[in-house]
Amino acid sequence: MTSPYCITIDDVKTAAGRIAGVAHRTPVLTCSSLNGLSKGRHLFFKVEALQKTGSFKFRGALNAVKEELERRKKADNDTALHVLTHSSGNHAQALALAAKLAGGSATTGSTAASTNVQATIVMPSNTPTVKRNAVQDFGATIVMVEPTNKARREKAEEIRQNTGASFIHPSEDPRVIAGQGTVCLEMLEQVQELTDKPLDVVIIPVGGGGLASGNIITLRSVLGDKVKIVLAEPAKLDDAKRSFEAKELLPHDPSNNLDSVADGLKTTLGPNTWPIIRDKADDILTVTEDEILLATKLIWERLKICIEPSAGVGIAACLGEEFQAKYPTQEYSNVGIILCGGNVDIVKISKKIEEAVARQSA
Amino acid sequence: MTSPYCITIDDVKTAAGRIAGVAHRTPVLTCSSLNGLSKGRHLFFKVEALQKTGSFKFRGALNAVKEELERRKKADNDTALHVLTHSSGNHAQALALAAKLAGGSATTGSTAASTNVQATIVMPSNTPTVKRNAVQDFGATIVMVEPTNKARREKAEEIRQNTGASFIHPSEDPRVIAGQGTVCLEMLEQVQELTDKPLDVVIIPVGGGGLASGNIITLRSVLGDKVKIVLAEPAKLDDAKRSFEAKELLPHDPSNNLDSVADGLKTTLGPNTWPIIRDKADDILTVTEDEILLATKLIWERLKICIEPSAGVGIAACLGEEFQAKYPTQEYSNVGIILCGGNVDIVKISKKIEEAVARQSA
Repeated sequence: MTSPYCITIDDVKTAAGRIAGVAHRTPVLTCSSLNGLSKGRHLFFKVEALQKTGSFKFRGALNAVKEELERRKKADNDTALHVLTHSSGNHAQALALAAKLAGGSATTGSTAASTNVQATIVMPSNTPTVKRNAVQDFGATIVMVEPTNKARREKAEEIRQNTGASFIHPSEDPRVIAGQGTVCLEMLEQVQELTDKPLDVVIIPVGGGGLASGNIITLRSVLGDKVKIVLAEPAKLDDAKRSFEAKELLPHDPSNNLDSVADGLKTTLGPNTWPIIRDKADDILTVTEDEILLATKLIWERLKICIEPSAGVGIAACLGEEFQAKYPTQEYSNVGIILCGGNVDIVKISKKIEEAVARQSA
Repeated sequence: MTSPYCITIDDVKTAAGRIAGVAHRTPVLTCSSLNGLSKGRHLFFKVEALQKTGSFKFRGALNAVKEELERRKKADNDTALHVLTHSSGNHAQALALAAKLAGGSATTGSTAASTNVQATIVMPSNTPTVKRNAVQDFGATIVMVEPTNKARREKAEEIRQNTGASFIHPSEDPRVIAGQGTVCLEMLEQVQELTDKPLDVVIIPVGGGGLASGNIITLRSVLGDKVKIVLAEPAKLDDAKRSFEAKELLPHDPSNNLDSVADGLKTTLGPNTWPIIRDKADDILTVTEDEILLATKLIWERLKICIEPSAGVGIAACLGEEFQAKYPTQEYSNVGIILCGGNVDIVKISKKIEEAVARQSA
């Protein structure tokens, strides 16, 4: 039987083996005061903010780089591997470090040169210096372009043609999707150590859909239809919800102001992630900017984890009225929430939180 | 041989058994970018910000409450236990939750009533509402007094005489000190799983000295004189350093402005904690307010843990010039740092951090 999707659970399991020992097995945390705020549910937070490079993106990037190395080795191709992407965000750091560590760890390569993985990241010129420095510190080459999607794509394609570099898309590459699917593979094992009841719901933030689609494959394979899979996105970036309702892949609403505080979720679904989400997600909820900010503050102050606002989207959805009404505690008691990343300028976001708190109490 | 100190390593080991399964075994985290900032050392962070109630204080409070319950049981005393303290900070929350959980878990008691532990916390009237609410949520009774040390002590003594409640001092109670000593007992085991070389230095923030003295007992017992034990405190609250240099227990310098951002370290050493520190610590370093703020920001942004500034004092000391000069990387490569707590108003501290960053770049 051929799968209609770009990956299967076997790809996720292979990815788990590939990244083991290099990627962190991030903790699952619980917090009784957050349980109380969620009408007595048991919330299980999978803390990908504590993953290497501060987000789940490292899993997919590492899986892709290691798969490339394996494939070249099989083909007796001993030219040095060169990987390439365009990203201003977490995938940029993730691929840069994955290239550095995958190269270093491939000690069975025939020559030293062949295990050295080169990485080139195309970044928009308005990328904050701190993110640029992180990528540079991992030894990647940065190519700056105008801050448009077109300029990024064209420059990456030009480099690919000139250098033969392997392009690794942040969310559409099947190896990236399979790598992200290891988040829930681990979470399900960890939750089993904490409780004898399985998860009733898993909430996953959705942007480009790599995290969502990879983990949908994992969850449906392990728990079947017994688990509700709820995706969450900012109302300002509701392409997934609009696509899900229309049953066709739609871009962002042109009337939307895309300036969400959850900037990690700005990208849109694509031909590989969309079919999985269309067929196998149960629900997509949206949250307001203030809900995201207040939820981010809650995680900072109660769970003591510095998440970025994109990771606050899941807990915001869980605490929102729509979720509480649709998924009553009695039936949906055990809830898994993926805290996808922690790369955040806390001083900057603190100011926005303060304004949100003021609006709340006004 | 009688120990000249209020506890021995056996008390710490007994405490570890008592609190196991109720207190968290908090993680030890590492971070390559922070290693880089520390001239290539290997830093091991014991994250007590992830302990129940957000600080290590829960360990000592729980050990004290459980020891009281055991002692009463042995004496066939089945009147309900009532514990009492004065604190505006982390010990208040810790004792409130310890009373709640120790009572609930002591299911072998003869009657339901005898396993119910009552807690009364004397708090100064200027305690922030959020801290008051946390204590109340755990079911403790709060008694408000004027915000002076004298008023707190007198009110607690009055309640003790009227009710027969057991007073549990935040840092001087030997059972509290033994409970705090379990931090390094765990850390040493966890570090051993991560590296084959032992810790060369452990850095511990010092305020009342419960954390410092308990863990000095643990470290000297397990590693002997091979480990350097460095205590760290704000320059504004340098009673430990001044006492250590004078070789006599001194109060805060009356000319000091005690308004440190590391408010958890404002208390001073006492007759039980002081002798251990005097005889068995290697060094006490002080750090400036800006060093504390910048170090706190580093932990937030690199380790992704929301520590309070008191917990930033240890990493601030580690990154400071004095430590780097006295303890060169070559000899002192593996450094353990206790991140003691995470109860912090991030929005408020963010503003102070922003000002510190501005001063730094001025």
